[in-house]
Amino acid sequence: MNHKIKIGLFGFGTVGQGVYRVVNRAKNAHAEIRRICVRDTAKKRDVEVPEGVLTDRAEDLFEDPEINLIVEVVDDAEASYRIVTAALRGGIPVVSGSKAMIAEHLPELIRLQHEYRTAMLYDASSCGSIPVIRNLEEYYDNDLLLEVKGILNGSSNYILSRVFDHGEDYSGALLKAQKLGFAESDPTFDISGKDSLYKLIIITVHALGVYIKPEDVFTYGISTIHDADIRYAREKGVKIKLVAQVVKVDESRFTMFVMPEFVSPSRYIYSVDNEYNGVVIRGECYDRQFMFGKGAGGLPTASSILSDIMARRHGYRYEYKKMGYMDTPEYTTDVRLKVYIHYETTDIPGKMVFERIHEKYTSSAGNYIIADISLRNLARYRSLLDAPDIFLANIPVFFLDKDD
Amino acid sequence: MNHKIKIGLFGFGTVGQGVYRVVNRAKNAHAEIRRICVRDTAKKRDVEVPEGVLTDRAEDLFEDPEINLIVEVVDDAEASYRIVTAALRGGIPVVSGSKAMIAEHLPELIRLQHEYRTAMLYDASSCGSIPVIRNLEEYYDNDLLLEVKGILNGSSNYILSRVFDHGEDYSGALLKAQKLGFAESDPTFDISGKDSLYKLIIITVHALGVYIKPEDVFTYGISTIHDADIRYAREKGVKIKLVAQVVKVDESRFTMFVMPEFVSPSRYIYSVDNEYNGVVIRGECYDRQFMFGKGAGGLPTASSILSDIMARRHGYRYEYKKMGYMDTPEYTTDVRLKVYIHYETTDIPGKMVFERIHEKYTSSAGNYIIADISLRNLARYRSLLDAPDIFLANIPVFFLDKDD
Repeated sequence: MNHKIKIGLFGFGTVGQGVYRVVNRAKNAHAEIRRICVRDTAKKRDVEVPEGVLTDRAEDLFEDPEINLIVEVVDDAEASYRIVTAALRGGIPVVSGSKAMIAEHLPELIRLQHEYRTAMLYDASSCGSIPVIRNLEEYYDNDLLLEVKGILNGSSNYILSRVFDHGEDYSGALLKAQKLGFAESDPTFDISGKDSLYKLIIITVHALGVYIKPEDVFTYGISTIHDADIRYAREKGVKIKLVAQVVKVDESRFTMFVMPEFVSPSRYIYSVDNEYNGVVIRGECYDRQFMFGKGAGGLPTASSILSDIMARRHGYRYEYKKMGYMDTPEYTTDVRLKVYIHYETTDIPGKMVFERIHEKYTSSAGNYIIADISLRNLARYRSLLDAPDIFLANIPVFFLDKDD
Repeated sequence: MNHKIKIGLFGFGTVGQGVYRVVNRAKNAHAEIRRICVRDTAKKRDVEVPEGVLTDRAEDLFEDPEINLIVEVVDDAEASYRIVTAALRGGIPVVSGSKAMIAEHLPELIRLQHEYRTAMLYDASSCGSIPVIRNLEEYYDNDLLLEVKGILNGSSNYILSRVFDHGEDYSGALLKAQKLGFAESDPTFDISGKDSLYKLIIITVHALGVYIKPEDVFTYGISTIHDADIRYAREKGVKIKLVAQVVKVDESRFTMFVMPEFVSPSRYIYSVDNEYNGVVIRGECYDRQFMFGKGAGGLPTASSILSDIMARRHGYRYEYKKMGYMDTPEYTTDVRLKVYIHYETTDIPGKMVFERIHEKYTSSAGNYIIADISLRNLARYRSLLDAPDIFLANIPVFFLDKDD
């Protein structure tokens, strides 16, 4: 497929307009955006396109025999699913950035790629401009990988960064993130940890060759963080970061979860601030690799999509090689964590059973407990932990001699 | 080439033994080391291999019809050149880690790959375990790239790290680096900047599609660093790092050089310590990406070689796409730098002409000058700058609004 790429683009918001700009900017890409499908062709946009490029009919893209690549950056998981599956069934390769849709439907999307002998690339779906999927698939293409751990959501990291590095309060920081366009107008997705979770699901497929359903992964966000938690972390000289991780716990098993974590200054991810993402890849022989870059924003995401477009020009596709390994590891939640739980009105010590309690603090301004508990048991209390007076954070000293 | 990889390995030192271990450790690699060619088969080694695997006859590898990949990790540029060219001419693909040889002969090696329709991979040659070549070739496969800058030599960085973070003196730190195996028994290669230079040459081919001969690139090492320079840097709150960089200076031109540099704490590479390498990739749309990992040592290098071995299993080859771009940028040394030059007996202000002098300091303990000079003019004084009383460092505030 070493010919000119003619793109049908779905979605023309921040990322879509970014894609339009980088494709036109990269003279040597030999790529061209032929048609753009949007909901409302009359809407005023920053980027101007020639007459006849915009359309609101998907058929105009699917039925154009010249179009040999669909790029889909629609901000609606259901629409994205319809577009991507229609393209694959029509034998047209797709580049997509829709993490929620991909995380939910990956097994089917892999099946469709095989069945219709076409390809789908989605590096932009995880960590914006950092080439994490491609590297896991191609470069860490062996069974020496032990762990992928990182800050995968730019918006929540921006908020925590304002709080920890600039002494702002949580709600002010959230507002600022929305103003700057790092957080969606509905930021639940970012601060609940769901966005990180979807990226982690995709990363795990390419890291270990195993697909785990989003609902089976323990996920806890930052929306209930209290001033007391921020003070506590500051006193201990650590920052609270929202961390997603997938970790081999022994030769045949791995675990994964998304949770706020106390991060000490000696860790790589400690210095990942603002809207940046950072990923640590740990392996048996290379120890740790750290990749760092912009995780949010139209142009960084668009540049990642350009890389996928160029890769298609050379016929590149994910082979999902690790899914064919003779001994893909098994998912377990049977691992012991050390956690910090802040509570006020909810009777955490009365309602939860811990393996071991390390510290217990009560005061009129709030209480906390530091205790060991298995991830499996923690998941049993998941709905209890949603109470607004509660905040949970991981203290990373656990189950392995790991230390990042 | 999705069959079993049967490897003929040349070299069985630290890296060669590392390759042997990781290939055997990676069960899903479907790779096997069939023969190993060494100079002395009787030599005692840490890693034991089965009878009949070791040989001192290269023909045993080249003439074995089962061997479908040569891996070459010989610590001798001439021997490495003979092995690699013989393999390519025989149509056998090669994985090599020999940066000096590759940097010197890359145009010929590219020609041989085309002529004999075979492939050569060498990600291990630059930055050990960091996948910099592969990412420049595949992921940053477009003309948006503006700069690649980094710490590419683990040994010299280890030495500077001991000096700046642990208050050791230069000669003690050098000794320690040698003891730990980070520096060669002859460390000239590392501390003269030559090792960084070779890596930079290779990186530039994959970053911008242009091959520049090593002798045409201004290279200055750390061997003449004085206590006064270290004190000066400490007072200013910066570290001295040995930095290699290739930078687009405008749409159609780029420059490159290897030089000690004053690095301030806000820069990514400031925190790259000990034997680690760190590379900043800057582009028009994604801003900065930072990759960080072990740049030296047997196992990290071996794991990079394993990645290349696996890539060959899937028929991967470098396409050198950027070399075919319609407008590859032109190399220039016509850029203004701001430099710090320490001198004692040599009359630097008398012998060198500067564009502008910012500061001049004289004392009984040594003198320095801070001045603007073009890279072209600096290169004219190259041999003068080799005097043992002189130390040169780049002060990065120059020719672009760049700030890493």
